[in-house]
Amino acid sequence: MRERDFIDWICSQSDFDPAIVPVGPGDDMAVVVCNGTKLLLATDQVLDGVHVVIADHGAESVGRKVMARNLSDVAAMAATPFCAVASVGLPTQSPQGDAEALYAGLRTIADAYGCLLVGGDMGSWEGPLCVSVSILAHPASTGPILRSGARPGDILCVTGAFGASWRTRRHLEFAPRVEEAKALAAGFDLHAMIDVSDGLAIDLGRLCGASGVGANLEGEAIPIHPDAHAMCADPLLAALTDGEDYELLFALPEPDADALLARPPFDIPVTRIGEIIASPDRTLTKPDGSRSPLPTGGWEHETR
Amino acid sequence: MRERDFIDWICSQSDFDPAIVPVGPGDDMAVVVCNGTKLLLATDQVLDGVHVVIADHGAESVGRKVMARNLSDVAAMAATPFCAVASVGLPTQSPQGDAEALYAGLRTIADAYGCLLVGGDMGSWEGPLCVSVSILAHPASTGPILRSGARPGDILCVTGAFGASWRTRRHLEFAPRVEEAKALAAGFDLHAMIDVSDGLAIDLGRLCGASGVGANLEGEAIPIHPDAHAMCADPLLAALTDGEDYELLFALPEPDADALLARPPFDIPVTRIGEIIASPDRTLTKPDGSRSPLPTGGWEHETR
Repeated sequence: MRERDFIDWICSQSDFDPAIVPVGPGDDMAVVVCNGTKLLLATDQVLDGVHVVIADHGAESVGRKVMARNLSDVAAMAATPFCAVASVGLPTQSPQGDAEALYAGLRTIADAYGCLLVGGDMGSWEGPLCVSVSILAHPASTGPILRSGARPGDILCVTGAFGASWRTRRHLEFAPRVEEAKALAAGFDLHAMIDVSDGLAIDLGRLCGASGVGANLEGEAIPIHPDAHAMCADPLLAALTDGEDYELLFALPEPDADALLARPPFDIPVTRIGEIIASPDRTLTKPDGSRSPLPTGGWEHETR
Repeated sequence: MRERDFIDWICSQSDFDPAIVPVGPGDDMAVVVCNGTKLLLATDQVLDGVHVVIADHGAESVGRKVMARNLSDVAAMAATPFCAVASVGLPTQSPQGDAEALYAGLRTIADAYGCLLVGGDMGSWEGPLCVSVSILAHPASTGPILRSGARPGDILCVTGAFGASWRTRRHLEFAPRVEEAKALAAGFDLHAMIDVSDGLAIDLGRLCGASGVGANLEGEAIPIHPDAHAMCADPLLAALTDGEDYELLFALPEPDADALLARPPFDIPVTRIGEIIASPDRTLTKPDGSRSPLPTGGWEHETR
């Protein structure tokens, strides 16, 4: 069973009272109602050899990355981080100081985003390093922004630029778009949002799937990171499929998109990259004007 | 740095506003104040080869155990489970069906305890199976029961019986004492409580350390599990040091202990095993009346 199918299967196994669990598995965070108010909860892990290579990246970068991935999930819901806990499986042969460095990495970025690291669990084992963080967040006053609200005619926008993150240290050092997401939710009628972790095309597919819509992207509009131009034979394909960008992808009505693009509420670039369509297709308009199915995988991946 | 020293070091790195985080790292769960009310949050993991041997125990047992360990942490605080999330690192060579069986194990016991599994993260990797669960809980109306409230003269009691859990399937199939803990907190003035995961002697040491007290246990009073009598050369040492019992150890004033022992509010046996003393020593009174330092390790351990 592929990961996507497995998540769908899990969703099919879950039957929650929407008054208690308005959003269950399948979005960036679950939404639960606790003493009458909504809270958001999610978990995300970093596995050595998949999301990081500790021998190359070092323990502090691993700690930073796993916490930042969780903060990026919080950003995807336009929520405010509150507190987190971490589980660590530490190899018995770890160099002295790795545990402290890992903790320092977790704390550095948690502190920077006002997220309190309130507990954890650590065990040593014969396996590679595995670190899981779970995070609690408060919704924005506008409520959490889900993946599922995009409507035909909505404009698709992104923050930042895409591609080649894994080939550089960007996948370790990215800044989760927490404040940007809150500013977007506060100022504009966001219909749907997701953070781009697995690739712009794949994560657009998730947003479209959750919303029951499709999308067309304008190839010429995709903001390609300079690293992808410098390092990748097909920079557009890299931007669409590399992943690990941790930028925001969101859908909003055209008037809101126009207002946003005319006066973005922050310094990170915002780019209009396409629009939501009623058919479930996901297509790419190439520079020559032809449309093709949006590629979701490429040859740019190393391990992920 | 040993695990205990590392946890102490982490506690020394944490400086929380007690109005926001009344209980940080170092207890069974953290206590955080969210929209004016207390919530409890913890995480606990199961690593293949340490806490389980998946080849022997099967994926469903692994799922059950990791969720049950979290529920036992909830019991230790006399709290009520609310919801949980799970991170899974699944070996690429896992047999077909392991992911579903793991999920079934998580759900079976979560459902039995009214805990909602609202989200998760799964990745496949070259490492052994690792599963981390994080759990949210509501405190009892009496508030969470901490490790740190034991006072000299308090009586130490336990639920159930101890020893040889790892040699049987008890460490996989135990029933977290959630309802028993709530009944204890509702009916008696519990000063301190912990669940026994690493061994009665070690976990008593944690309770004493957090409370700034010591303890004397009566060797003849320790409830030794029949499995330990049957399988261990020194059943008392096994009961004190094997761990994986997931029973409750708690301290309460003598009149409350007398009332509890006269009329326990549930069917699980409750036993008076010793008392809290002012000096930091932890001692064992042997059947011959002599006192010795409480052993915290033994030869009974296999992998843990």
